[in-house]
Amino acid sequence: MTTIESPVRNGVDTAALFATLDAVKANPDIAKFQFRATNRWVSGTHNRSTIRGFYGAMQEMTHQQEHVFDADHPAVLVGTDNAPTPAEFVLHALAACLTAGLANIAAARGVNLTEVSSTVEGDIDLLGILGLSDEVRNGYQQIKVSFRLRGDDPAKLRQLVEQSRKRSAVYDVVTNGVPVAIEVDAG
Amino acid sequence: MTTIESPVRNGVDTAALFATLDAVKANPDIAKFQFRATNRWVSGTHNRSTIRGFYGAMQEMTHQQEHVFDADHPAVLVGTDNAPTPAEFVLHALAACLTAGLANIAAARGVNLTEVSSTVEGDIDLLGILGLSDEVRNGYQQIKVSFRLRGDDPAKLRQLVEQSRKRSAVYDVVTNGVPVAIEVDAG
Repeated sequence: MTTIESPVRNGVDTAALFATLDAVKANPDIAKFQFRATNRWVSGTHNRSTIRGFYGAMQEMTHQQEHVFDADHPAVLVGTDNAPTPAEFVLHALAACLTAGLANIAAARGVNLTEVSSTVEGDIDLLGILGLSDEVRNGYQQIKVSFRLRGDDPAKLRQLVEQSRKRSAVYDVVTNGVPVAIEVDAG
Repeated sequence: MTTIESPVRNGVDTAALFATLDAVKANPDIAKFQFRATNRWVSGTHNRSTIRGFYGAMQEMTHQQEHVFDADHPAVLVGTDNAPTPAEFVLHALAACLTAGLANIAAARGVNLTEVSSTVEGDIDLLGILGLSDEVRNGYQQIKVSFRLRGDDPAKLRQLVEQSRKRSAVYDVVTNGVPVAIEVDAG
């Protein structure tokens, strides 16, 4: 009897990961995705998004479940605090993307992880969005992500963060920006 | 007896909104905020963020409740589909920020809204994040937001979208980018 190394490391099915890479190499159209969210205003600064369907791997797909997320402003920003602010969801997205990538890269490299946690802080001066200054930008002025990693060799762990940063969709969006087109049907 | 116009329009307390603007004009330090999220890896591409505390109005503050959001990849992207992808949360954040701003601006301008809904679509080619092309970016190549508004005069409704775009924190982040610093404690 021979023993073989488990293809699952850090909860990542590395066999499936490498098979996906091979499939995409054979047909790059598999890699064209479109993600979507629909949003509906509730009242004041409170609104609600639904996420379910997306396009990918050359077909319409759906998440196993529909996901619903509210957003609101806290009372200090004249909201009813039913949910985090939209800007806080950007911080969640950034931490989540870097962390998911890090776990995949660790699995592909054979690096074991026991802990990955992070804190993301975004500094914003609301003089921008309040329309009280034309010199202050509307969005975050800077964002800091502080990772704590435990597992194999610290040098290898640090390299995981660097590689995840290089291949993160949300890090790219947040640092480099994306063209956004807005269409309006006003009745 | 005199009748006065209600200070609440579209669910926005316009009296509080204008009082907030006056307070910030008197002391711009009130407008310096820091939003935060903490994230913890669960397994594979599945991780979880917690959002509660923030700094603003010259003090540490907290949301009324702690909010917890998971993120994951769908099976087609070698995840376990416990939650939307990090990139989909960016779409929620963008729709939510534009919509909250729109409702505030409508209230301030005395414009009544009966419906605000939107669909956000983000096109992404995963050849980037999969490391299979150096010419394809990691993040969205473009994002489209389609609004449907109902309420007062259509021309006024369209102006609300334009003004919200000009004063949206997340629209600014997503279109213009933000510097992100990453620190690592690898043990």
